[in-house]
Amino acid sequence: MNMMKFRLLIFLMAAVFTTSSATQHPNLFLTSAGVKEIKKSLGKYPAFDKSVNELRKIADNAINSEIIVPIPKDGGGGYTHEKHKNNYYEMNACGILYQLTGKKEYAVFVQKMLLKYAELYPTLGQHPAVRSDTPGRLFWQALNEAVWLVHTANAYDCVYNFISETDRKHIEKNLFYPVAEFISNGNEANYAVFNKMHNHGTWATSAVGMIGYVMGDKNLIDMALYGSKKDGKSGFIRQLDVLFSPDGYFTEGPYYQRYAIWPFMTFAQVIQNQQPELKIFSYRDGILNKAIHTMLQSTYNDEIVYLNDALYKTYKTQEIISAVNIAFKNNPSDVMLLDIARRQDAFFVSDAGLATAKALKNNKSKPFEFKSTVVRDGQDGNEGGIAFLRNNNSLLTFKATSHGLSHGHYDKLSLSYFDNGNQIIPDYGAARFLNIEPKNGGNYTKENYTWAMQTIAHNTVTIDEQSHFDAKIKVSSNYHSDIQYSDISNNKIQIVSGIDTNAYKGVKMQRTSAMIENSMFEFPIIVDIFKVQSDKPKMIDFPFYYRGQMISTNYESHKQVSELKPLGTQNGYQHLWLEAEGRTTKPVTCFTWVNGNRFYSINTLTNFDTELMFTRSGANDPNNNLRSETAFMLRQPNTANHTFVSVVEPHGLYDLTKEVTVGFRSSVSNLVLLADTEDFTAIQISHINGKSFLLITTNKDFNNNTTRTITLSGKTITFTGNYYYSEIN
Amino acid sequence: MNMMKFRLLIFLMAAVFTTSSATQHPNLFLTSAGVKEIKKSLGKYPAFDKSVNELRKIADNAINSEIIVPIPKDGGGGYTHEKHKNNYYEMNACGILYQLTGKKEYAVFVQKMLLKYAELYPTLGQHPAVRSDTPGRLFWQALNEAVWLVHTANAYDCVYNFISETDRKHIEKNLFYPVAEFISNGNEANYAVFNKMHNHGTWATSAVGMIGYVMGDKNLIDMALYGSKKDGKSGFIRQLDVLFSPDGYFTEGPYYQRYAIWPFMTFAQVIQNQQPELKIFSYRDGILNKAIHTMLQSTYNDEIVYLNDALYKTYKTQEIISAVNIAFKNNPSDVMLLDIARRQDAFFVSDAGLATAKALKNNKSKPFEFKSTVVRDGQDGNEGGIAFLRNNNSLLTFKATSHGLSHGHYDKLSLSYFDNGNQIIPDYGAARFLNIEPKNGGNYTKENYTWAMQTIAHNTVTIDEQSHFDAKIKVSSNYHSDIQYSDISNNKIQIVSGIDTNAYKGVKMQRTSAMIENSMFEFPIIVDIFKVQSDKPKMIDFPFYYRGQMISTNYESHKQVSELKPLGTQNGYQHLWLEAEGRTTKPVTCFTWVNGNRFYSINTLTNFDTELMFTRSGANDPNNNLRSETAFMLRQPNTANHTFVSVVEPHGLYDLTKEVTVGFRSSVSNLVLLADTEDFTAIQISHINGKSFLLITTNKDFNNNTTRTITLSGKTITFTGNYYYSEIN
Repeated sequence: MNMMKFRLLIFLMAAVFTTSSATQHPNLFLTSAGVKEIKKSLGKYPAFDKSVNELRKIADNAINSEIIVPIPKDGGGGYTHEKHKNNYYEMNACGILYQLTGKKEYAVFVQKMLLKYAELYPTLGQHPAVRSDTPGRLFWQALNEAVWLVHTANAYDCVYNFISETDRKHIEKNLFYPVAEFISNGNEANYAVFNKMHNHGTWATSAVGMIGYVMGDKNLIDMALYGSKKDGKSGFIRQLDVLFSPDGYFTEGPYYQRYAIWPFMTFAQVIQNQQPELKIFSYRDGILNKAIHTMLQSTYNDEIVYLNDALYKTYKTQEIISAVNIAFKNNPSDVMLLDIARRQDAFFVSDAGLATAKALKNNKSKPFEFKSTVVRDGQDGNEGGIAFLRNNNSLLTFKATSHGLSHGHYDKLSLSYFDNGNQIIPDYGAARFLNIEPKNGGNYTKENYTWAMQTIAHNTVTIDEQSHFDAKIKVSSNYHSDIQYSDISNNKIQIVSGIDTNAYKGVKMQRTSAMIENSMFEFPIIVDIFKVQSDKPKMIDFPFYYRGQMISTNYESHKQVSELKPLGTQNGYQHLWLEAEGRTTKPVTCFTWVNGNRFYSINTLTNFDTELMFTRSGANDPNNNLRSETAFMLRQPNTANHTFVSVVEPHGLYDLTKEVTVGFRSSVSNLVLLADTEDFTAIQISHINGKSFLLITTNKDFNNNTTRTITLSGKTITFTGNYYYSEIN
Repeated sequence: MNMMKFRLLIFLMAAVFTTSSATQHPNLFLTSAGVKEIKKSLGKYPAFDKSVNELRKIADNAINSEIIVPIPKDGGGGYTHEKHKNNYYEMNACGILYQLTGKKEYAVFVQKMLLKYAELYPTLGQHPAVRSDTPGRLFWQALNEAVWLVHTANAYDCVYNFISETDRKHIEKNLFYPVAEFISNGNEANYAVFNKMHNHGTWATSAVGMIGYVMGDKNLIDMALYGSKKDGKSGFIRQLDVLFSPDGYFTEGPYYQRYAIWPFMTFAQVIQNQQPELKIFSYRDGILNKAIHTMLQSTYNDEIVYLNDALYKTYKTQEIISAVNIAFKNNPSDVMLLDIARRQDAFFVSDAGLATAKALKNNKSKPFEFKSTVVRDGQDGNEGGIAFLRNNNSLLTFKATSHGLSHGHYDKLSLSYFDNGNQIIPDYGAARFLNIEPKNGGNYTKENYTWAMQTIAHNTVTIDEQSHFDAKIKVSSNYHSDIQYSDISNNKIQIVSGIDTNAYKGVKMQRTSAMIENSMFEFPIIVDIFKVQSDKPKMIDFPFYYRGQMISTNYESHKQVSELKPLGTQNGYQHLWLEAEGRTTKPVTCFTWVNGNRFYSINTLTNFDTELMFTRSGANDPNNNLRSETAFMLRQPNTANHTFVSVVEPHGLYDLTKEVTVGFRSSVSNLVLLADTEDFTAIQISHINGKSFLLITTNKDFNNNTTRTITLSGKTITFTGNYYYSEIN
């Protein structure tokens, strides 16, 4: 059955759907059967009990406090914002606790609060603190309103049978229908978001769909599933088609993948309970399960990697806890998820959470395998991709994706690198202080655009001090980079190669990065070849942001001692203090720093023209919105064709506890660019022990099965595939 | 019995000491009885086994490797340095493993290596890499040579009976006697150190004493215990009198206290085994036990606080592991030490270690009580002191000590503050990269003096841009600050008050800091009153170094956006980039930042003259030897008398995982200096809820029992003691 037919079928099935099953309560995340089982299980699964008790604490605190439903006034972090947020957490907790204990006070609390909201809501106009194009009523943006409704729908579901029909009618008429109407059709912007292929749209459809199921309103359910026009061209099902790539990658990047996954997984669970015939978890070849795995693979030491707009976040958040629980419940053979649940040490108090806790207790878990992955971007998987190369405790991310909607950065072919538990060559992530009102109302700061999104803030090349696509999202969104080839089948060398031809007019950028394991080096090294070809001479800047303390350079770096000036005036350059400059006569430049208990060296090819700089972010930052981050930067002026060849090498030990310092010097003795043509690039890396490696990457006609013959210094090398790697003796 | 008589007695006892007990082997850290018991105990105490196995790993690796005793050449971090260091660890491990297993290979290894050293040592002149006034032969400084001897003496003790008498004689003649002679009398400098009241002296006496005991050489033993002249005016016993204050504080500060305690405790254990009649652990009212407790009390979250020359270090290092084990073994009623041993999760493989492991297993442990302490500095306890105020997870250090020998900083009345697991208002510690050769040979960098030691690098006042005592150690060492009074008896308010009248001519500085717990504030707050009186007008700078990201100021802080300049030209000022300047018309200036998941605000009294600055270290640092640290700084120009009044308040929650941000605003609504005279200073702190506190500190005639009457705004207040604290309603 092809996809279009399948979608049509679903649509037809939906058309014959009746609300019969919706008359059961609860039936969103908790079912009657699930409640019975949870009650029986209390005391058996300590981490699950802990999660129940956390809810109990919230609920008990709630029923002993005055119910306050304030008139909306403040933005994120402000009193009314946090109060309404707290209110939905309290209703949700009381609803669940009512189901688990039967204690009426909990239900009364939800009922009373809902009645208060039913009183307030009809009086509200647009929220006074406008944050976005889609303002809310209770909150500054409609998104928060949808999140409110998701939680509140669950609370209502839990106490549905407790509340009198009169009250229910009153609440539904004055609160739930107006909220659902506001979210789906309150104004042009909200209508657009509801029908948009965007995570805010998923929150909107999930929220409306959930309250639809609780109220047994087929109209709302169908709108949620198939869009306002119920034609399947928008709505939740369509979002499942569009928002994830076939590999389950969410185009905005890992940080927002985490957030997007929440409504996807939770609403999918609701659909599964209410309309199991839709087989939502099998939909699109099990796209939801792929999404949770892709999400988990994009973490390092529990933390989600920092790409695009990203802040600190681990997979131990409530959204990933519920997503993992739901994914496991609906794919019980996926026992690696239990390992994640074990690390999360908390559960979604629901049928799914209990099923997960039980299976974990029964030792069904297998270690979650954090492995190298290359995932495609784009609805059809043809809009570039992102690679995660891992070996032991190292991770290299390699980004050759599409723009990533409004949270994307102008960072084609950028990489970031983690090792030994630390961020070594970090991506800046977002310039934002979440919910801290004095920091631009807790929203993204101005510097998120002027700095964090700009190309120079990333570990990739900037040409002529201009960002990729001139930092214009409308232009950038039309294009994507591509993965030329990748091979992650062997730890000896894992390699990925990407290309971008659109970021700059007339410029072709190709980058090939490899993680190489060889006993000559203590730890896996990164080899990086960045080839830039331009139709006319340009200035190319190539920074490596590094965290740690500088140890040494093998050239004279002239540090500014009595005055710092910004490196430039725009496109992010205005935010960089130029801390040091230098040139070298050596063909290989080496810079060494220390982070944690390990040293790192970058050895990179340089020539007489190369300007070597050290920078620090923080210039032109009147409101202190930037972190102070340091970079080692190569500047290659006036060149049409240039290929950067670099090795990032972790080495040695700096143990302050044992007072042991060894191996603070790089083991790379030489780097040579042996050949560099349209067809291929060949480099030689030499170790101080005298041995060398040869790495050849092809630059076109990629094919795993092509056999190629190359002559290097009179020697003929034949290989099959896209690259050649060998030790030279 | 008075102290002089006691010392005389010891001296006389030593005079009748015979070497009989020294003929037993082993008898330093391991005894024959201890070895038997350890053998029986293997497999019973996992953490002890782990420590044995670590030694076994070293030993097994050693016996399977070539013995290399290189000609000394490199400084710390370099090959020969690390090799000789490794050699003594290997000999030590093999010696112990020989005792525990009887396996000859271990003993043979020690024997062979000792023979190699006996061959090399007589050929050596002064080490080519000279680090200090006291160069070594095997190492760049004699200190390392002493540490080598401590370990090697133990190894020799363990294999003593295995080695033939001929070999022993050869080794003793060509190696141990020459090393002992070199350390104690190799040249004028070494002689001086051996007899000096300094931790290097303790290493020297311990090393010589230990090999003396092993070889049964009374001359060496007596020199070690009573000095080169054996008159008790120097030597180990005298060091016990002088180097610790009566409270067990080591004058160089906590970081070096950790290091100093190593030879003190280990050699004391040896003395206890060899000459139990000396009752060394009871000496000076149990000074060694006090020293270990004072050491442990000067940690925060396992880390030793950063005062004077200090780097990162926890109490989980080998020196504190052995010290804790030995302290417990010799004071078995001190069961709180077992709690530390549990956290260390490793043991000193010795009689002491086993005794500790056993007691721990038998559940004798009590939680170690990290509590507020005020300890005196100086041999007689009359050279000022240092206070550690704690409440829950907060720690304030308050330093009013003597200089602290060569590792002291010019930081009279400085404080540092830890909270919620983080360094909030840190002390810089040392500018050093231990054993990283490219960083000034791994030694202290030049910037340790030009920056880290200078007053402006500390959280105290600098006057007229001059450091305390003009940063002259010879001057500074003549004086000390004083604790005026303290009271740590009640968590509601813990208070300490200090004075310094010598740091600047004609200037009296008095500082009173309190940690106050009140339910109005979420967390304990710090109230700080810094009173400066000068004979003529001066410029006073008062920085608060802060870690974290700035959130807001309640005045317009003009940040340098396009150029940074150093704040000054000397005395540490040359290392500060001036990042922002501002003035205020408000009487109370507020600065808020975030660190970890908590906000912090400093509210401080200001006037029209106050210049408000933000600085960052890193200027005039051509070799990148400085960390980038930020400060909020008050500058009060042209004033003879000024009193800074500040409140440091932790507040709110910034939880990025749960996306909860609350309480990012300070709760301090006002600060008023009600009165400020020669006699007393009175301040009022107001909370946004309308309530206020009154704090009065007396400025002279300190006495806990004096009843004082003060009239404030027409109201008479009577109190007994040195301060008054009350809520005003």
